[in-house]
Amino acid sequence: CHASRSRDWAHHGAPMFADLTIREMKAVQAYLRGIPEMELTDARSKTLKKNSILLMELHLPKKHEALKALDNGHARPPRQACVIILFGNQTKPNITEYIVGPLPSPTSHEIKRFKGGKPIHFESRPITSVEYDHINSILEKITTTAHKVLFEITEGYSYTNCSLRCLTFSDVAPRGLASGERRTWIMLQKFVEGYFIHPVGFEVLINHQDLDPEKWFVEKVWFNNMYFNSVEELVEKYESGDVPKIKLPNQYNDELYSTYIPRGHSNTPTNIHGPKLVEPQGHRYYIDRNFVEYAGWSFAYRVRSSAGLQVFDLRFNGERIAYEISLQEAIAFYAGDTPAAMQTKYIDAGWAMGTSTYELAPGIDCPEIATFVDLYHYFDTDKPVLHKNALCIFEMTTAMPLRRHFNSNFQGGYNFYGGLENTVLVLRTTSTVYNYDYIWDFFFYLNGVVEVKVSASGYIHATFFTPNGLHYGTKVNNYVLGNLHTHLVHYKVDLDIAGQENSFETMELKYVNFTNPWSPKNFIVQSKLHKVEHKTERSAAFRFGKKLPRYLHFYNPNEKNKWGHQKGYRIQFNSHAHSVLPRGWKEENGISWSRYPLAVTRHKDSETTSSSIYTQNEPWEPVVSFEDYIRNNEDIVNKDLVAWVTVGFLHVPHSEDIPNTATPGNAVGFFLRPFNFFNEDPSVASRSTVIVRPGQDGKPKVQRWTPEVIGHCVTEKPFFYNGTYAGV
Amino acid sequence: CHASRSRDWAHHGAPMFADLTIREMKAVQAYLRGIPEMELTDARSKTLKKNSILLMELHLPKKHEALKALDNGHARPPRQACVIILFGNQTKPNITEYIVGPLPSPTSHEIKRFKGGKPIHFESRPITSVEYDHINSILEKITTTAHKVLFEITEGYSYTNCSLRCLTFSDVAPRGLASGERRTWIMLQKFVEGYFIHPVGFEVLINHQDLDPEKWFVEKVWFNNMYFNSVEELVEKYESGDVPKIKLPNQYNDELYSTYIPRGHSNTPTNIHGPKLVEPQGHRYYIDRNFVEYAGWSFAYRVRSSAGLQVFDLRFNGERIAYEISLQEAIAFYAGDTPAAMQTKYIDAGWAMGTSTYELAPGIDCPEIATFVDLYHYFDTDKPVLHKNALCIFEMTTAMPLRRHFNSNFQGGYNFYGGLENTVLVLRTTSTVYNYDYIWDFFFYLNGVVEVKVSASGYIHATFFTPNGLHYGTKVNNYVLGNLHTHLVHYKVDLDIAGQENSFETMELKYVNFTNPWSPKNFIVQSKLHKVEHKTERSAAFRFGKKLPRYLHFYNPNEKNKWGHQKGYRIQFNSHAHSVLPRGWKEENGISWSRYPLAVTRHKDSETTSSSIYTQNEPWEPVVSFEDYIRNNEDIVNKDLVAWVTVGFLHVPHSEDIPNTATPGNAVGFFLRPFNFFNEDPSVASRSTVIVRPGQDGKPKVQRWTPEVIGHCVTEKPFFYNGTYAGV
Ligand SMILES: [Ca+2]
Ligand SMILES: [Ca+2]
Ligand SMILES: [Ca+2]
Ligand SMILES: [Ca+2]
Ligand SMILES: [Cu+2]
Ligand SMILES: [Cu+2]
Repeated sequence: CHASRSRDWAHHGAPMFADLTIREMKAVQAYLRGIPEMELTDARSKTLKKNSILLMELHLPKKHEALKALDNGHARPPRQACVIILFGNQTKPNITEYIVGPLPSPTSHEIKRFKGGKPIHFESRPITSVEYDHINSILEKITTTAHKVLFEITEGYSYTNCSLRCLTFSDVAPRGLASGERRTWIMLQKFVEGYFIHPVGFEVLINHQDLDPEKWFVEKVWFNNMYFNSVEELVEKYESGDVPKIKLPNQYNDELYSTYIPRGHSNTPTNIHGPKLVEPQGHRYYIDRNFVEYAGWSFAYRVRSSAGLQVFDLRFNGERIAYEISLQEAIAFYAGDTPAAMQTKYIDAGWAMGTSTYELAPGIDCPEIATFVDLYHYFDTDKPVLHKNALCIFEMTTAMPLRRHFNSNFQGGYNFYGGLENTVLVLRTTSTVYNYDYIWDFFFYLNGVVEVKVSASGYIHATFFTPNGLHYGTKVNNYVLGNLHTHLVHYKVDLDIAGQENSFETMELKYVNFTNPWSPKNFIVQSKLHKVEHKTERSAAFRFGKKLPRYLHFYNPNEKNKWGHQKGYRIQFNSHAHSVLPRGWKEENGISWSRYPLAVTRHKDSETTSSSIYTQNEPWEPVVSFEDYIRNNEDIVNKDLVAWVTVGFLHVPHSEDIPNTATPGNAVGFFLRPFNFFNEDPSVASRSTVIVRPGQDGKPKVQRWTPEVIGHCVTEKPFFYNGTYAGV
Repeated sequence: CHASRSRDWAHHGAPMFADLTIREMKAVQAYLRGIPEMELTDARSKTLKKNSILLMELHLPKKHEALKALDNGHARPPRQACVIILFGNQTKPNITEYIVGPLPSPTSHEIKRFKGGKPIHFESRPITSVEYDHINSILEKITTTAHKVLFEITEGYSYTNCSLRCLTFSDVAPRGLASGERRTWIMLQKFVEGYFIHPVGFEVLINHQDLDPEKWFVEKVWFNNMYFNSVEELVEKYESGDVPKIKLPNQYNDELYSTYIPRGHSNTPTNIHGPKLVEPQGHRYYIDRNFVEYAGWSFAYRVRSSAGLQVFDLRFNGERIAYEISLQEAIAFYAGDTPAAMQTKYIDAGWAMGTSTYELAPGIDCPEIATFVDLYHYFDTDKPVLHKNALCIFEMTTAMPLRRHFNSNFQGGYNFYGGLENTVLVLRTTSTVYNYDYIWDFFFYLNGVVEVKVSASGYIHATFFTPNGLHYGTKVNNYVLGNLHTHLVHYKVDLDIAGQENSFETMELKYVNFTNPWSPKNFIVQSKLHKVEHKTERSAAFRFGKKLPRYLHFYNPNEKNKWGHQKGYRIQFNSHAHSVLPRGWKEENGISWSRYPLAVTRHKDSETTSSSIYTQNEPWEPVVSFEDYIRNNEDIVNKDLVAWVTVGFLHVPHSEDIPNTATPGNAVGFFLRPFNFFNEDPSVASRSTVIVRPGQDGKPKVQRWTPEVIGHCVTEKPFFYNGTYAGV
């Protein structure tokens, strides 16, 4: 039968999307190191003037090739790796990306080019641990010079030669004001648990553009609301009394402030375990490596080292809904009164947010019953790195019905009661990008709905408090300002609604006013569907600040459901996003995707991503510019379409962000909802439905397809329902 | 200590908000029946020309009196009932509301007046079961006349003398086009499981204004897209062939279509139980009748028979956040091509949605571990009606962290991992308003966040398909149109942020542009907080269609947190609502609250609710008009404020609404989020936190305050966390 063949092909094709294995990574490394003219050395060796591998990850097959395997069961195209090499040991250092294959025994490599052949500035590279080592060295010099200042104001903290009272630092990005620069504002913090919210009021601008760290230098110092041209100038003025010798020790009248250690009390006990999920009869999903099935769903997944979680070949009952849904970028643009705060525009793919998938704690990050999966990354390393339990997959109950109806007879009884519990499969990873922890979720509901969601936790990015800072945030402790910022997250949603040829329309309501047909002296005003087909990319690029139409409808103009409607899905936003800078203003060019809550483009293999790992340190002239994808304003009628979705929220920190931003209320995302894709709600396939009808004897009769008793862990009592509502 | 005294007073005051007991209801009934001049008879007696009790429910104490009990431990004011009496047995029938007290032994009654002393038109009364009996009688006459037509087109269905092939009906509202009318469009449906989506294409307008049902008459008939002035005219034209004799039997090529009976298949098994919630160590919440405590929370609740779920005296750690949060109204305004569809503007408090709280099924409507509570209603009855298990309270895990952070050392190890699972207390009821099932939820999070949410399920309101109907919805089966409509739900949110005197401001961002202080040849553009204090009711009434500011901030100008910020809460919307009719257009006057996603008024005991049980049948000149509350445009600075919140969504039905609208994606609501109300996130009080640090021996050391092992039902393995990410 067609459905089972389709299922086999989906299963067969899933390995095309699997991340690189250890063996593949090692083979690629060995192959490239075997090319003499590349002169590759260890990434972890101390010098910056070297050629080395920065990152390797799966290179996705071209879509039309992958589809042959997925739709016709053809052989899978050979696997390939994409490798970023930093060529620092050259007169003109550069960055080159290579496609290496076939895996697992590579024999060839070719240069991967960006759209328009844009070169990658060497200054746009992410910062590596070796570069951080050198930054640490210059900071040791700086803090030695400023030792007395720091030691006095903090009552005993120092950057070096410290044991319990140490300082640490945070660097912000971008690293400069214009293309080609590499100079970074760094702020010092007390190295305590949760140091992100312990600024000491010392910020320094270090120019580290030269590949010889000996040539790095301090450009500016900010201390206690004043600017200095050098550390020496600060020290001199501090000694002479031109800088007030304010002490910070009273800053933290609560030492626990930044920690997770419990304090305070609660009306009800919390020292016992709360409600937990159990699976009394085992998993109801199927996982084979990166291929997952649940209810009618099947999909493949991967976690791209640069940008994160991706889902491929998403199908329901064998029919494709999306070819790819993938995280592209996450940004947080800040405002503030200190130079580090004003400068902070985090563009997290540049911090390899896909690799910062740290271990998930059972019972906290995912339920105990989850399936935990290890990930492997190759970034800023000389061997593959194992991230244990970095992804989880689980089914949960939402403690809600998916549908329910009590069919009253309006006389104290009922015709029937029917209900189906709402369970959902969750696919989850996290990215801890320095202070912040993003939780990335895909939810697959029984009724063909997918929810894509990001939740924010972790520490806020905080700076030293100044009175003027109150225009840009909230005081969250003495001397600490929580800086306002906007989170935006970008997703690629390559919907393939029952095939590649899709169209896009929006629906709004318009009032119509006409003579009442049954009472001609009256008028009727009612709403009418107002559909607009968007025929070109520009027309389907919706700007922030303008009203997004209510229904965003993607459909296959060639496929109809049983009732004659074109099979479709719609995107429903759950977001409070807005743009973060005026269009075209400096760094905004690097995030041109953020102009649009939704933009629809024609699919191109050359337009794989909307951002890159280079944007953070080169937002001014980015190698990947989303705006380029819509500039040619292509026809999008009955074509292979890609929806690009921006969600996010404004975050004005407040005292309750201490110690961490909490997830309730801080989650945004979008739904993909079937709209006449099926003939009826496909969750009717679930045998977990329960129907109760009054029996002949007046007692309720339960019709069900699951065991009557769930089991001793949940309840030994069989399900009971009374149904009547009687006078007393 | 203050907190414990405050807790005692909250507990002491909760009975003021408890719904009427059976004993109280019976006492009120006996008291009123003992007043000869009222001439009260049974509500269920057949005549409409009688005086009878329609509804009785708790009459809330005046706020300032209740506060004496809640804030100072004073004696509670006497309990009172509010009783609606229909005086049909009079020359000029009227409706009067009485306040009866003191309970449980009433000795007095006084008339309750509406703002402005507006009288309640007798035609505005909800329809009772006795009136439905008479409607049934006239329908028997009508369908007997049209028997042959109906029998032929449906292949054997009839309204009377049927056993397996019966017809039933649905009536729509409002019942007319202008004030004082009582004439209803009624559509016939096949009486099968899920009859709401089985229209047969016969609609009839019955005038039932006269209190003598013998004088009721048919005004119009709609059949197969044609209008007739009488049933006789239809029959005549049908016989003569002027009406095409289309047969409907092929309408339902799938007999299962409207049922819950499973069909279709699934990739993975669904005939076993899915994940379930357990409480391995018991409840972590406390309930004493209508008083509930959980973590720092305490509140009282009730389910008002007319309008539904209400929460009172909401506190966290003894400090009040809201005096009242209560559901006011739910509407669904439709559009369509048949007269019934065009006429449908459901205003559900008029159907006593607070009483349609039918039994909740364990494991579907609420988890098996929930505490189920019975409710009692007195509506259209002669004795109190028991609604078994109509409300539930439970704690659940969201299968997410509330907060988590992995503190990497960026060298394959970590400084610490910390996490706290996100559990939440849920308070839930449902209203099955005929075809639709609303699920009403309050979520109380550990971190001081409240979420108020409504989810929609049940059957869509569907009408007979006509080609022109496609402007107003989707074909969901042969001859069945799912009609577009908008759901709007109104809540009263009487925030009392740390006291009654509150102010309201909105926050937006504005770009500022200034010279870069550390690089004067450059400019900085960044966002700055732009706060606007709204000083009057008009200024704080935000219209749909205009942009709602991002942050809606209620604060106490007289109370500050530890860091000097005014203690506040903000409302965060999760909604896709919009207005449903042009301002002032006929029925829109009845729902003037729906003009505003948010309006802020000064609290008045005379402005208890924004709607009434009378609006459905008299939306044109409603006795309660929300617009009246803001018309005097009072000062709202440092005053007792009430926020009125409208949420909702546009529902264009689609094939996946069959058999029922499903909850995923169909939930809207709002969050109440602390904004500098506390000094830090109050969930730090939870002992469910887990911290992991690398031990001296290199092994992870777990710090926790809950038992190491959860128990055999969840897992026997103690929590384990590795923490490192190492090269392989
Ligand atoms: Ca294009
Ligand atoms: Ca596509
Ligand atoms: Ca007023
Ligand atoms: Ca108030
Ligand atoms: Cu944030
Ligand atoms: Cu609806």
